[in-house]
Amino acid sequence: MEIKVLKNILSANDEIAERNRALLDKNNVFAVNIMASPGAGKTSLILETIRRLKDKIRIGVIEGDITSSVDAEKVGKEGVPVVQINTGGGCHLDANMIQNALGNMTLEDIDLLLIENVGNLVCPAEFTIGDHKKVLVSSTPEGHDKPFKYPLMFHTVDAVLLNKIDLKPYLDFDLEIFSQAVKGINEKVEVIPISCIGGQGIERWLSWLLIQMGRKP
Amino acid sequence: MEIKVLKNILSANDEIAERNRALLDKNNVFAVNIMASPGAGKTSLILETIRRLKDKIRIGVIEGDITSSVDAEKVGKEGVPVVQINTGGGCHLDANMIQNALGNMTLEDIDLLLIENVGNLVCPAEFTIGDHKKVLVSSTPEGHDKPFKYPLMFHTVDAVLLNKIDLKPYLDFDLEIFSQAVKGINEKVEVIPISCIGGQGIERWLSWLLIQMGRKP
Repeated sequence: MEIKVLKNILSANDEIAERNRALLDKNNVFAVNIMASPGAGKTSLILETIRRLKDKIRIGVIEGDITSSVDAEKVGKEGVPVVQINTGGGCHLDANMIQNALGNMTLEDIDLLLIENVGNLVCPAEFTIGDHKKVLVSSTPEGHDKPFKYPLMFHTVDAVLLNKIDLKPYLDFDLEIFSQAVKGINEKVEVIPISCIGGQGIERWLSWLLIQMGRKP
Repeated sequence: MEIKVLKNILSANDEIAERNRALLDKNNVFAVNIMASPGAGKTSLILETIRRLKDKIRIGVIEGDITSSVDAEKVGKEGVPVVQINTGGGCHLDANMIQNALGNMTLEDIDLLLIENVGNLVCPAEFTIGDHKKVLVSSTPEGHDKPFKYPLMFHTVDAVLLNKIDLKPYLDFDLEIFSQAVKGINEKVEVIPISCIGGQGIERWLSWLLIQMGRKP
């Protein structure tokens, strides 16, 4: 009985996600779902991406948070359109929330939509929202064992950005163990070490992103 | 209809949590529910606590993870009884899981039960499990804005351990903003900066813990 309810919810979610994707496609908007633990650097990545690409392509942002509009305010200062979703306790974004957010954006003015999910390595991986690509921001202080402990998230995504690589000298973090663990769970995934503060790897991330969009990097 | 189902689940959970607490009380076991983001340092805190207290008091551990027994193996090496719960995708521990784990422990041989919840700043705060105190391990690389973004978690706990204080010199982390934000959400909570690697603050944490247990620090 409970399982049946859950199935209905998930299938309804998937249907709305398909409609979201169709709406984005119709408007030539490429959507990236950015997921991570709290504090791994999703907002920093979005800010850095906007700063480096905004003269090339038109970017829009959806910010997902349980509460507050801290991140949307930071993004808004970069002069790009941003919609804040407050989940009101919910631990992930779902397709319905994205549908509502898309209704509040002028999609014909956007080429790339960056969607910041709620900070959580578990639940966001279980819900489709209608994106074209999924990206995980992992970070060195979280430790190299995270792929073993949150395999669904690492399995679900198209790229893993390993952020805060500038802190590696101060940490017991083994990049080889991490990369091998990720590849063991998700053979096709790209692992890109980056630092949103130091700038390392950001050009590689932008190249990957532009290629996914079918543009010249 | 859906809300009704959820209410029933939560109230059943609370009833089992009450039974867990009664069972622990009967056996004079003091239980601490340790919550955090992935990689904030829950396991490191548990290991450090065992090493410093195991000659004084008898400690047992319940490890909660989605999958794997990496943490339970680390804890087992310290020579204390440990039970691993695999939630199989579930994003938090619930009272039923703890009930099952308690059935697999010799409670009369334990004074202090450390329960490591699933790495997640959202869902674990919503489920009672039958503990006596709740502790949040936050960490400096996550940033000082976390209390604003995950208020329920900060509101729910009895102590906030701010881990990885040794990394502060390399980070844009403002301890004053963090502490004020925590106090704004939870006036009575103790904020203790610690480093599980460097040892800073660990004695203060152990004193706090022993006082909660009604023992001399």
